[in-house]
Parts: sequence; structure tokens; C-alpha cells
Amino acid sequence: MSTVIKGGTVVTADLTYKADVKIDGGIITEIGPNLSGETVLDASGCYIMPGGIDPHVHLEMPFMGTYSADDFESGTRAGLAGGTTMVVDFCLPDPGQSLLEALTRWDNKSTRANCDYSFHMAITSWDERIFNEMQTIVQDKGINTFKHFMAYKGALMVNDDEMFASFSRCAELGALPLVHAENGDVVAAMSAKLLAEGNNGPEAHAYSRPAEVEGEATNRAIMLADMAGVPLYVVHTSCEQAHEAIRRARQKGMRVYGEPLIQHLTLDESEYFDKDWDHAARRVMSPPFRNKQHQDSLWAGLQSGSLSCVATDHCAFTTEQKRFGVGNFTKIPNGTGGLEDRLPMLWTYGVATGRLTMNEFVAVTSTNIAKILNIYPKKGAILVGADADIVVWDPKRSKTISASNQQSAIDYNVFEGKTVTGLPRFTVTRGVVAIEESTVKTQEGHGKFVKREPYPAVSKALSTWKELVSPRKVERTGIPATGV
Amino acid sequence: MSTVIKGGTVVTADLTYKADVKIDGGIITEIGPNLSGETVLDASGCYIMPGGIDPHVHLEMPFMGTYSADDFESGTRAGLAGGTTMVVDFCLPDPGQSLLEALTRWDNKSTRANCDYSFHMAITSWDERIFNEMQTIVQDKGINTFKHFMAYKGALMVNDDEMFASFSRCAELGALPLVHAENGDVVAAMSAKLLAEGNNGPEAHAYSRPAEVEGEATNRAIMLADMAGVPLYVVHTSCEQAHEAIRRARQKGMRVYGEPLIQHLTLDESEYFDKDWDHAARRVMSPPFRNKQHQDSLWAGLQSGSLSCVATDHCAFTTEQKRFGVGNFTKIPNGTGGLEDRLPMLWTYGVATGRLTMNEFVAVTSTNIAKILNIYPKKGAILVGADADIVVWDPKRSKTISASNQQSAIDYNVFEGKTVTGLPRFTVTRGVVAIEESTVKTQEGHGKFVKREPYPAVSKALSTWKELVSPRKVERTGIPATGV
Amino acid sequence: MSTVIKGGTVVTADLTYKADVKIDGGIITEIGPNLSGETVLDASGCYIMPGGIDPHVHLEMPFMGTYSADDFESGTRAGLAGGTTMVVDFCLPDPGQSLLEALTRWDNKSTRANCDYSFHMAITSWDERIFNEMQTIVQDKGINTFKHFMAYKGALMVNDDEMFASFSRCAELGALPLVHAENGDVVAAMSAKLLAEGNNGPEAHAYSRPAEVEGEATNRAIMLADMAGVPLYVVHTSCEQAHEAIRRARQKGMRVYGEPLIQHLTLDESEYFDKDWDHAARRVMSPPFRNKQHQDSLWAGLQSGSLSCVATDHCAFTTEQKRFGVGNFTKIPNGTGGLEDRLPMLWTYGVATGRLTMNEFVAVTSTNIAKILNIYPKKGAILVGADADIVVWDPKRSKTISASNQQSAIDYNVFEGKTVTGLPRFTVTRGVVAIEESTVKTQEGHGKFVKREPYPAVSKALSTWKELVSPRKVERTGIPATGV
Amino acid sequence: MSTVIKGGTVVTADLTYKADVKIDGGIITEIGPNLSGETVLDASGCYIMPGGIDPHVHLEMPFMGTYSADDFESGTRAGLAGGTTMVVDFCLPDPGQSLLEALTRWDNKSTRANCDYSFHMAITSWDERIFNEMQTIVQDKGINTFKHFMAYKGALMVNDDEMFASFSRCAELGALPLVHAENGDVVAAMSAKLLAEGNNGPEAHAYSRPAEVEGEATNRAIMLADMAGVPLYVVHTSCEQAHEAIRRARQKGMRVYGEPLIQHLTLDESEYFDKDWDHAARRVMSPPFRNKQHQDSLWAGLQSGSLSCVATDHCAFTTEQKRFGVGNFTKIPNGTGGLEDRLPMLWTYGVATGRLTMNEFVAVTSTNIAKILNIYPKKGAILVGADADIVVWDPKRSKTISASNQQSAIDYNVFEGKTVTGLPRFTVTRGVVAIEESTVKTQEGHGKFVKREPYPAVSKALSTWKELVSPRKVERTGIPATGV
Repeated sequence: MSTVIKGGTVVTADLTYKADVKIDGGIITEIGPNLSGETVLDASGCYIMPGGIDPHVHLEMPFMGTYSADDFESGTRAGLAGGTTMVVDFCLPDPGQSLLEALTRWDNKSTRANCDYSFHMAITSWDERIFNEMQTIVQDKGINTFKHFMAYKGALMVNDDEMFASFSRCAELGALPLVHAENGDVVAAMSAKLLAEGNNGPEAHAYSRPAEVEGEATNRAIMLADMAGVPLYVVHTSCEQAHEAIRRARQKGMRVYGEPLIQHLTLDESEYFDKDWDHAARRVMSPPFRNKQHQDSLWAGLQSGSLSCVATDHCAFTTEQKRFGVGNFTKIPNGTGGLEDRLPMLWTYGVATGRLTMNEFVAVTSTNIAKILNIYPKKGAILVGADADIVVWDPKRSKTISASNQQSAIDYNVFEGKTVTGLPRFTVTRGVVAIEESTVKTQEGHGKFVKREPYPAVSKALSTWKELVSPRKVERTGIPATGV
Repeated sequence: MSTVIKGGTVVTADLTYKADVKIDGGIITEIGPNLSGETVLDASGCYIMPGGIDPHVHLEMPFMGTYSADDFESGTRAGLAGGTTMVVDFCLPDPGQSLLEALTRWDNKSTRANCDYSFHMAITSWDERIFNEMQTIVQDKGINTFKHFMAYKGALMVNDDEMFASFSRCAELGALPLVHAENGDVVAAMSAKLLAEGNNGPEAHAYSRPAEVEGEATNRAIMLADMAGVPLYVVHTSCEQAHEAIRRARQKGMRVYGEPLIQHLTLDESEYFDKDWDHAARRVMSPPFRNKQHQDSLWAGLQSGSLSCVATDHCAFTTEQKRFGVGNFTKIPNGTGGLEDRLPMLWTYGVATGRLTMNEFVAVTSTNIAKILNIYPKKGAILVGADADIVVWDPKRSKTISASNQQSAIDYNVFEGKTVTGLPRFTVTRGVVAIEESTVKTQEGHGKFVKREPYPAVSKALSTWKELVSPRKVERTGIPATGV
Repeated sequence: MSTVIKGGTVVTADLTYKADVKIDGGIITEIGPNLSGETVLDASGCYIMPGGIDPHVHLEMPFMGTYSADDFESGTRAGLAGGTTMVVDFCLPDPGQSLLEALTRWDNKSTRANCDYSFHMAITSWDERIFNEMQTIVQDKGINTFKHFMAYKGALMVNDDEMFASFSRCAELGALPLVHAENGDVVAAMSAKLLAEGNNGPEAHAYSRPAEVEGEATNRAIMLADMAGVPLYVVHTSCEQAHEAIRRARQKGMRVYGEPLIQHLTLDESEYFDKDWDHAARRVMSPPFRNKQHQDSLWAGLQSGSLSCVATDHCAFTTEQKRFGVGNFTKIPNGTGGLEDRLPMLWTYGVATGRLTMNEFVAVTSTNIAKILNIYPKKGAILVGADADIVVWDPKRSKTISASNQQSAIDYNVFEGKTVTGLPRFTVTRGVVAIEESTVKTQEGHGKFVKREPYPAVSKALSTWKELVSPRKVERTGIPATGV
Repeated sequence: MSTVIKGGTVVTADLTYKADVKIDGGIITEIGPNLSGETVLDASGCYIMPGGIDPHVHLEMPFMGTYSADDFESGTRAGLAGGTTMVVDFCLPDPGQSLLEALTRWDNKSTRANCDYSFHMAITSWDERIFNEMQTIVQDKGINTFKHFMAYKGALMVNDDEMFASFSRCAELGALPLVHAENGDVVAAMSAKLLAEGNNGPEAHAYSRPAEVEGEATNRAIMLADMAGVPLYVVHTSCEQAHEAIRRARQKGMRVYGEPLIQHLTLDESEYFDKDWDHAARRVMSPPFRNKQHQDSLWAGLQSGSLSCVATDHCAFTTEQKRFGVGNFTKIPNGTGGLEDRLPMLWTYGVATGRLTMNEFVAVTSTNIAKILNIYPKKGAILVGADADIVVWDPKRSKTISASNQQSAIDYNVFEGKTVTGLPRFTVTRGVVAIEESTVKTQEGHGKFVKREPYPAVSKALSTWKELVSPRKVERTGIPATGV
């Protein structure tokens, strides 16, 4: 059953050209003029782009005895509705738990996914079993990324020792470490102080983790990675301080990637000063929204290449769940939605304003992360042989974002009221049309786990370099007897 | 007459995969497994890469009544021998001369080229005719880049006024300004002072134009481009100061490209302190070689993306010509060779050391500049439909660079004695094998002029953004009568 | 006739201590406890500080056939009312005019000064006479600073060649070059464009000279000074871009000073968007006011020492004079007042907020510039033997700034309506009480010219260093015959 | 018994003038021309400067059951011989030990001091007793500085939690935190790895703690201090990375001081590659020596003011003690000498080269630290009323540094063979001549403890600012019931 996308303009990370795209068996089989197939999707006036890849989501994430509201079904449905055809979730072992056991839990949850997905494995504690299991995770389970939390003290947080050990292990295995970069000790101490002073509202969440706190942790993680001889991926880079640390590292030749979220690019801290507690609490995430100067920094990072990918950290909690934190901001579950809105928001605020070219749009929403995760060109490409994960983008379609007509399971939307121009006409997941304008045709369970190989080119190059400049022992003419 | 490159690994700016490549009519017609054709080129053990593009050469350049020694024949032959399949020369009108007249002169010289070529047009003075001719150059002559010399006072140099006018014109025409960034006033004054003090040897050339002088001009050109609302390409970025200015601009979202030369990446200022006058004089170019710290900066720029392309500024003068400057360093003709050595040197010092991946190697030698010049994917790509400008790269082939066996017409080589590993097995120019290992099969006159369209995506995006943030007039409630 | 200031706390750039201060013959003769004298000034509850030095004023400045409204009488009266006891004006020769002739004109104007003063000499053109006269100016006339305008094209502006020549001459004479740093070519071109587009209001003045334009010129002047081997003083540093260039230079060990104005520290660009033309036009000065981020940068510069002095660029034009520019912003005379308000504004927004210590306040309003101008400790100090230029500062006195009760001759005040806390109880100029709270007791003609010696310690040190690292000729084993 | 220093030129941090200096009772009692006294010290041809203050020494430091070789007698004798008249040692409680008990031990050791001294108190662990004792230390014991080790894991090191608690306590008490900034976790892990690989020589000490490791810790400490609202003093800043972090903080207005050592300014890492084990081991200190680029950075920091003081970290171990580490570099006692050589080396490499003015020399060797420690002008000044801690500096006296004629108790000198020009003619400690050229006249036990008050002006200003920008609670219109 072949499908042809006809009449559109293919837009990839480095090309823009008129062509039809033929799909068969979930794979792109032909690209060129005048193609024909059993089904035809009309792409006239549209751009045919690689479907979005969101490298940072939390679906059905366990939290305080409950779960985040969007599961793999509703979450991937929301993603498809917005042109995203692959998500990467985080497998979160409890500290001390086997990585493999945790992975089983995540495998169970993801069976309902409407589009393809993969997992980052979190390292939330350190011991010999974890050291050993990392090899299995990489070599047998198809996971080449390990996440480290520098915040959430007493829960997921690991210390420098553990991070350095894990980063070193990643270097050996050809895997890529990820960090959530905030100084957890300081956040914990400042949170306690704020609460003690009666500062218990959602705005205190932002007060407890200023940009300097994120910048510090980013800088620290970079040093740890440099010493361990491994590239580094910094998730949800929200501020100039963190971005500066990344730039500084890169201008020394270090291999560091930064990932701003669409929320941090377009929303600011004034949201926390809203008089309505619910409004503010719904925006509570870590790192928190920042001010306009930080936004300018993030956009410039996408333009110049010092930041690599736009994600969402989609972790949707209902208003009812958010209210766990009434009277104590530290109990407000951290997270917002965004999966459905990432592409339209970035197009509207990025491409339509001239900040980004269309090709850069594709790069930062799809291709760059596919390369970083070592799944390019299976994903992130419009190439013969690639998975047919495609969004047919109508740059004229417009809507006003609203919780009332979204796919996500939650009862609000942090972008509520924003008008976006540029929306999917079709979203195609491995050859299957999941979205046709406003019509949702997703197939529960269609999504498959995407295996990722270790040792991408950058890892190998860095290893070669680190070996070249590694410590050399001085040959001495004579060594005295010890003084003891 | 079809040709198939068989058994190799295709390496592009973003892909590495096993495939054969079929060529017909000078175009790549098929990429895939098990292809066949009338002629077979054995690529086993080799990488099939887009041929190098050298965006910065001066062939048969007029100078003091004579010409630089490599013309379009020997220069492109040298390039092909080293895997470079396209060069961009600079059309240099005399100040006050018609751009179109100058172009005719260059068209005449280039008929002997062995590979494809294009021209940058230099703006060496400013008047209404030039303003008008720029449009013809862009729209009729297929040239979308204009070069500006901030040095060479009294000859090619233009001042800020002229540059700003020309940059503004480029913005209107969708063209890209290029700059040679050194403060010509300071160079002239310092040169005079050095000569007056008896400092007349080749080393004084380096003394006359320190890194700060280049950094200043780079910074100034960036400001001018930003005010004019146009991207900027900085040729032969040789030092941290200039690179810092570029980074600083980019981290504000400005669209600025930097081009290090292979010479600056691998040779340093100690060459000028050689006891042998000829040795030192042969290395005289502008900017001069710098120290190791500057080299580190340039390499990191290639790694991080803050620098975009590696060029040569190939402008070969014989030792006899260099000796024009005995007793007066300002008369030493500026320029060195490099066309034949750019790719092998960058591979050896970049890829083999782990500084760069193979994909990054392709990006900085070919693909990036093709995109900047708006000729991608005709050039810079291994894609069906692209020109068959291909180098079949043998990573095991090795040689020691020597003037005694080079293609260039000059009697020395600045890389003399360096051993490179990684050399072309075949170089193919629009489907024709020009080089087969050490055998030269170039065809004089085979090369054609490559037309380039204006308004690449980045130019359009920048224009949109500049319009968005342009000055807005304040509506006033009442304006007083003038005080005069 | 001795005077004793009793009961106060002496605050200098590095000391805070209880002491009385005795004055005789215009000089501080004793500092210590329990002093007595014929006249007693009650300083209880007050700080006894060196009087302010404003290094940047234009009194009775010629402009379009008229003069700026504050002359040496009203200008210095305003200064004294605000605690400033010395001003440095700019002697502005017409291009081509003799420096000495211009100085005579300035000497004539300054006879009415109420407090001491000095001159910076401007270099507005370049020829052998000026080269020679610079020596007379330095060695006979007691002026060790030369001002260079990089803006005001067609009037005061000098080009890079002229600046480099003048800077080099300064290096020889032990003098300090000053620059007004804006790229005059770009300002002129952008002004013309704005006018052509109908953008003729005062806000277009700001549009015509963005922060990048100032940053560029600052960076260029720094390079020129570095090549000439001379320190540099950048007047009215208004923005992060210029400050960044200064910081970058200083972190390489270059000797560069930056001077923010009190206006740029406390007022922002929103003033130009006022609906009232007069309001906006009264704020027209170069560089224009900037945004809050630039203000933060300037304050941090004062805190960290990367910026050295706070000045005013006091150049007061009446509303009637400002209206010369109705319909054409380029004809609005550039300049605002500030002499009377500099210290109270800086105290209120700097010391009272905790941004600056009291000692830092003294440093940036008086002592630092006295050192830079090489007149310390005659000026800028509370030391035995120093001139008795003293302000007795009452940190509790408060007022709301208003044109209605100011000393300046103009009909408005850019700080109108701001409440300051911290005002002079007494201002003493060479031993004479000129201000006693609101009572003005200035004596016209009391002020004397302050001679300044060349070769301050920093100049000498820099010369030593530049000699140490100067170009060395390579001794060659053999030099070929010339190739010509 | 009065003493007069006659015929010299007084040089302070901001003045240079001819004057005699009269001393009585250990205090400067008069400064001026033609003074007379019972004893006359001939200062003709000399500079009369405040005696050096070394803020960073370890005398008789306990280590592995023994002590560093220079005790308070020989250490202060060495200091005086080199023009240093005050030292600040570190009181080092064992983790868990009472601060007051530790102080008693240090009080006992210091009774033999030949010049005045003070202590920094180290925080090596954290509990309620330490929290409480800090108040006693500050308010009763005259110590306003607390040292924190971020390295020496398992011994003195404290973690972020403890540092943040201690920094916050310092903010309350008006005390200044100090940090040894190296990431101890990484150093420990890398040391173990190096040893495991057989890299056990002294050079591995340098390998185990690269500049990035110091830069990271410096950056982290700065963030912790900023969040705690307290200034910060970073000891032994050895590299660009740490200096960059300090500059970056300062350019945001943070109050951070950096202290390079004379060793890092003048010696480089090549020392560790010496073929002689003893030679290399004698240079083992933390941070280790760096390369020339780092030295340039440090010098520029002194010139620009981004670094504040030059110290020694004098901690002298004999060759025999150094040999504890034969076969295991981690057991080489960390530390070198320097007390006697700091001023002559800095004069020779700083003042004589033109890098620093004489006034800057005084500032960075004496006055700046006196201000930071809040003991100015009792120390660090040539002022009436100040302690007569004076060095009469002969800029013509020269010697070649050698262990054979030094005061220090150890058998080598890291500056062995360096010729210095500029040495004390006299060193005077509280009015007593301790050194007269090569003659040592020190008096054991003459030195007294110098009490230091908390809340210097900078601390107070910072507290005001931090209060001004502290979190404000949002008043909400309605808060929902909790979701739980």
C-alpha cells in the first residue's frame, strides 16, 4: 500500500526543493517529480519536512504515588497532532534499583504509543551493578544515553563523584551523558529558607533556583565530561548563564550540546507573578521561566549553533495535581505540557519572524537530535530508505492554542490564547497518516521502540583526541629513596 | 558514457554509508548498492566525498606588472591533485574601473580552468556606476558575493563609508559581502615606522599587522554588516581576536561566517624568524602566520561551528617574485600556495588527530561553503542530480609534501617536508576523472563558470528580522515651532 | 583666615574615619581630632569628602553661531551647588586651527569660573603644526590630555590615520588620548537614511547611533592606542558593547579607562519615546540613553573597577536652542545638563542602594580622575597639603530635583522630579565656602586653571613594557639579491 | 626612642612623594620634610613602602604526623628578609573539632613570630557547634575570615551544602569566606586513575588537577557566595579558567577577589617535567604551576584589578619530607616556599618590566589585602597613626636567589638561580628594624596577633543590595484548596 505526498516542497536541514515523496512499508522509497502511489496526500502549498523528534518527554511519569497525566497514548497523540513523530522518554530507576528492572516498567508503559519512541536511561545512584548494567543497556537494549540529575536532592540527584564515574563509563561504552543542571544543594537550602520565611507560593519556586544556580551546574557538568573524555548533552538550557558555559566550552573545542525548551523560548517569569495561584502553579517547572534577556540568548544560540535542539520536557500534571503544592511550593509537581505546540510555536516565533530559516527549523526540531542520538538518517531525514516520519506543514493554517481543543489529557495549556500560523496538514508516522488537519487518526500501539547504536562519530573523534593529549609519564634519571 | 564508483563509503557533511555512486553526463544519477556502469572506479577502502571547494584563490593575479605564478590551468590542476574540484577566484577591478570590464578580463583568464570555478567581485572604490553595476553582476552575471579590502591602503582598500554603502547595496540585492579584515591605516603607518627603523626583513611584515589589527577590522566589518542588515563572510580569519569578534556577533544572532586558512591552522609565526630570507619571504601573506594559541582557537572554531570553511588564499609567487621585497618587506608579494595541500593537511592534522569527524571535514572543505554561496546541492553534495565533483579519498595513501613533485608552478612549498596520510585515489570533476593517484589527467578548459543565485535562505530570514525590529516613528501629540 | 570643618567623618577613596579638617590659604593644613580655627563649619552627621571633579563638561560651547547656555560662571555654580569643585572643559579648535589660538579663546571664557578647572585639548585635524603644538600644549600649557572625536563627520571627526598619528604623539609626550567613540561614517549614513524615510523626530537620534556603533568605535580606539603604546580614556561609555571592549582590553593588561555618565546610569531610552517633542529633544545627547541592561552593565563596571569615573558631559542647551532641530533631528543640539545633580544622583542610586560603598563613590566622582589626570593628591584627596576642595556631605538632606530651583541657566532638568537624599551641607573650593545648604556664596573668577604634568606612572610603565616587547630584527645568514 | 627614615621617596598604593617618616612607639607619628629622630635610617635612593602582607602562609603546619619546616620564627624571619611585615596563617581544625580548641593550638605556635600575624579560620566540617563558634571567632577572637577547602577529599574538604551554610553564616556575621577552589571529587578520582596506570611521579600531581578543575570550583564557589549574599575571596588563583570565572562574576557586580601566587606568576609547568624527581617534587603544590598563557592572564589581572593580591601559600617542606611521595605522588606534601622572595620577584618581573607601577606593586603586596581584611590603615599604609610596618626598598640592590643564603629552614628554593633587582635596605616591624640589608636583626616573639573587625564597607553595601533585590511574595486574589 504505497502513499505519495504530492505537490509540496521538501524542506530538510539543508535542502529546499520541489518533489513528491513516495512511501511504502513505512519507508521512504522514492523522492522526485511526478510520483504516483495508491494513496495521494495533497501537499500543495505545503512543506514536506521530517517529523519532529522531541528528545525530552515524561509520559506517565510516576510521582508521589500517582502519574503525570499524559501517558504514552495521549502524549504521542498530542505530539502527532503538532507534527512530532518521535519522542524520547526517560527511564527513571529508583535510587539503588536495577536499570534493567526499571526498563521493564517503561517497556510496559510504552506499548500504547502512537508513534515511535526511545528511552534515555537515568543514573540515579551508583554501584557496581549499575556500572555493569550500563553495558547491557548500551549493547543489548539499544540505549546510548544516560541522564543525570544534579537537582532533586534526596531523590534523583547524584553527586560529582557518581557523575564522574558514570561519565567515565559512558566514555568507555560510546554513550552520551545527559544532565539536568541545577545545583541541588543550593536549591534545597534556598527552598527551605523561602518556606521558613513564609514564601510558599509558586513564585518561590522561581526564587529558589535562579539562573546562576543553573549556570553553575552546567559549568560543572561540562568540566566533569571534559575530564572523563566524553561529549555532553545539557537538557532544558533555560538561561544565558548556562548557555554561556556551553559556549565557553564549545569555543575550546569541547563537544557540548544544549537543548532549550519551547517554553523558555517564548514564555517568561512574569507568569509566576500572576495573581491566580493556579495560573502560576501550572507553569512550575525546573528550570523555571526566565526573563526576556535569557530568551534572546536562547534564540541566538539556535541561530549560531551553540544550542542544538528544541524540546519540551513535556510532563503534564492536571490542575488538581498541581494543587498538591498549595501552601508549599516544593510540593507542586514540576512540569508543563508542550508536545502539541512545540513546532507551531517555534515556527510562529522563529521562522515567521526571520530568526530562523526553515532549514534551521528542521535542524533544531528533528535532524540535529537524530544525529546526536545516532539514529540519523533513519529518523530526522527525508531520504530514500529513511522511516516515513513526515510532517506536511501548511504555513498558512492558523489556530489559537487552547486547552479546550488539545489532545493532551490536562485541563489547561501554558500557551493558552497564543495564535500560531503554521500547522500540520498531515502527520505521517512510519507511513501511516496519523493526523489530517484537525482529524486525529492515530493508532494506539503503532509506535515502536527505536534502538540506538553507541559510538557516533563525535564520540570516536573525541576519544582519539583525548588519547593524543593524555598524560605522559616523565622518564626520570634517578628516583630517590622514599623519605618515610 | 556512465561511470560507477564502486566499493567505497560515501561520506558527506552528515552521512556515512556504504554505497556505489553512478555518474552520467557529469551528474550523479544513482547512489546505491551494486550499481554498474561503463567505467568502474574502484573505491574499496576509500571514502567517496564531495570534491573540495576552495572559496579563496587568486590565479594569475596581476601584481606590479607581472602575475601570480599559478594561472587557472596550473592552479586548478594543483587543486584537483589535492581533491579540490571547484575554486572561487576574486575579480579585482582597479579602483574606479567598471566591474563589468574587470569581469571580462577575468572571464578571459579562466578559460583554461581544469575544474569549475566562480568569482567573487571586489568593490575597490565607490560611485554611482558601481552601485548600478552591482545589480547587473548579481542578476545577470551569476555572482552573489562582493569582496571588500580593509587593508592595502592606496590600492584596493575601501573606507567605512564605502563599505557601508556597498553592504547596504548587498542587502538590497540579496548578495553577501566578504571582507579582508585588517586595519589598513594602521598597517601602513606601522610599516612605514618599521622601515624607518631599519626593520625591513620579512619578519617585519608580521610585526606590521598584529592580531589586534585584524581583530579590530573584523569587529568593524561586523558592525557595518549588522547596521546594513546583511550577513557577512570574513575571509582568512587567522587569529583569536578576529574569531572572538565573530563569536561575539554570532552569539547575538548575527549571521557572520569565518574562514580560516589551512596555513594558519598548521603553520606558525616562527617561520618568519628563519635565518633564511627566502624561507621567511615565501611565507609572507596577509594576515601573517600567528602563534599556537591562535591555531588552537581556529581549530576549536571548526569544531564548534563558529568558523565555517577552510580555504587557502592560494596566490603563488615564485622565489624570484618574492625577492622584489629584498630590503623592503612591503614589496614582498603577499601570498602562498596551498591548493594541492588543503585537504590532505586538514585530514592529517584534523581528522586523524580526532579534532574533526570525517563529516565535519566534508562540511568545512566543501558543503558549508556551497551552502553559503547558494550553490548547494549542485556542489558540495553526493546526491542524485548533483554535479559529479567527487573525491575518492584513500585514508591510507601517504606522501611527504615537496615542491619537487607538486602541480603548482612555484619552486617551493610552505608545507615542504610534512608527511600527510589521506590522499585522493581519484578526483572527478563533473564526471571526468582528472586525477588517478599520482597520474594527472586534467583537461584544460574543462572547467565552467558556476552561476550563483542571490537571496539564500539566511539572507531572506535576516531581512525579515531586520524589518521586524526596524525604527518606528513616535507619533507625537504636538510639535513645537522650530527654535531658529 | 583658617577654617575648621568639625565633627564630621572623613571619607576618601580608601578611608573612613572621624576627624576635623583645618584649612588655611586654600590648602588643607591639618587633619585630626579637636582642631580649631577662625571659622568653624559644622559637619556633625556629615561626611567630609574630596569635592567632585567632573572631567567632562562643555561650558559656553560654540554651536551654530550661538553657545551652550551654561558658561563658566553658571556651570561651575551649578557644579558647586552639587558638590563638584573642579571641572575639565574641552578646548575645541576648528579643524585646521592652531591649538594655541583655540586655547586663548578658552582661556578668555574661563575667567569667570567659580571653581578650579582644566582643559582637554581636542585634535580635530592633523598637520605638522598640530604635531608641533602638541608639545607646547603639554610642556608649557599644562594640558596632558587630547580629545579625539570619532563622530561628528564633517566637523570635529578625525579618521584612523589622524588618530593613530596623534596617539603616537601622545605616547612620546606622556599625554593621554581621549576618544568620543561612535562610528561617524555610520551615524552620518544612518541619519541620512532615517531623514529620507521621514524619521525626523528626536527618537531618530537614538536610532541613528545604536550601541553596536559605539562599541565598534571603542574597540577601534583601543586597538589604535595599543598599537601606539599609549593608555586610553574613553569618554561617556554608555553601553555594554563599549564596556565589553574596554573589559576585553583590560583583561589583556591594556591600560584603558571608561567614563560612564550619570545620565546613562539612571535614565533610559524610553525618554525618547515621550509624546512630547520637547521632552525627547531635551534628552538628545551622544551617545543616547540606552536600556536597563546597559545601565546594569555600567553599574557593574563601577563596582568591579572596569569603569573608572562618573562624569556628566554637561552641555546645556535651552529648549529654544533644542528646537533648532524641529523637523530634522540632526539639528537638535547635542547635550544635557547634569553638573548639579551628578553627586546626589549617584549617591541616591549608588550608595543608598548598596551598589557602591562611600569610598567607591569618592573614587569614581573625584579621586580616580585626579589620578588619571595626574593631579592627585592636589585634587581628589583629603590630605595635608591638598587643595581644600571639599564637600561636606549630609546624607540626610533631601530634595526633589527641579529646573525651578537649579543653578543651571537652562529651563528644564533631565532629572526633573527625582528625589535625591544626600546633598552638600557645604561645598568648599580652595578653602572658600561656595555653598552652604541652599545658599549660594560663589565668587565669580575664584576658579583657577589647574596645570597637569605629563608622564604619570601608568604611562611610564606602559612605555617600559612596550619597549620590552617591541619588534626585534632577525639577523639573517644571507640575503639574496633583489628579484627586480 | 624615635626613628626617622630619611631621604627616601614614599611610595604607597596611590602616592609617590619625597618625605621623611618618623616612628615612635611602633607607630608612624610624622611624615614630612626634614624630620629628625634618635635613630636615623638612610633611605636615600630608596622607596619607603608599607611592609608586605602575605595573606596566605602555613607555618608549622601539621602534616602526616610531622610539621611543615618553617615555623612562625623562621617563616616570619624569611618574610622580613624579603620585606614582608605581616603574615596570615590558617587555623585548621580537624573535621569535627572545636574551632576554639584549634585556635588555642595556633595561638601557642605563633608566640615565636618575628612580625605581626593574624589567622584565617578554616571550616572543615559543619555542625551546630561550629555554627555557634563562628560568632565567637568573629566577635571575640578578631578573626573575620573563614577558609573552605573544596579539595583534599576525605580530609579538609567540605561539600556544597556545608559551604553554603557557612557562607550564609559569614553573611550574617559580616565575615568573608575564602576558598581553595579545586573540585576534590575529580582530583581524587583522577589521582586514583593515574596511580592505577602507573603514573606515580610528581608530574602526575599536575595531571590530576588541570586548570578546568580549578576553574569549575572557582565558578561554583562564586555562585554559592552570590546566593548567600556574601563577598568571596579565592586563594591561589592559578589559571585563566579561575580568573575568567572571577572576571565574569565581577562584571556582574559581584564582590569577588582573586589572589595569584608569586610562584604561579613566574614559574611554569615545565618544572614538573624535570628529569630530577626531587626538582619536580619540590614544586608540588595545589594548584600546580601552569603554562605561560595562564601567567599572562594572571599578570593582566593584577594590571586591570580583576585580581587583587599576590601571596605565596608558603608551606615549606624539606626534600626529605617531599620524598614521602616517592612512588606515589599523592603522598608528596603539597607546598613550596616563597615568603622571602615574593616582593623581590614581583618587583623584578612586574615593576622592572613595566607590567605594574610601583603604586600597583604596593597595592597588590600590601594595601589591597589590608583593606579586604579590614585592617587598613593600621596595616598597609604609610600614614600618621599607622603601624610602622615599613620596607625601605632599594631598587638597585640585586642578588641571585639561592637556598644557600635564605632564611627559610628548607634545603632548596623554587626560585633558585633567579636574579632579582630590588631588595629591602631595611625592613621595619612596628618600629623595630628587623632587617638591614643582609643583616638579620629579628626579635623572636616581637610579632603580635592582629585583630580584625567584621562588616567592612563592602559587606555592608552588598547586604543592602541583596535586601533590595530579595524575593518578594506575590499577593494572590484567591488560593485554591490543596489537591491532596
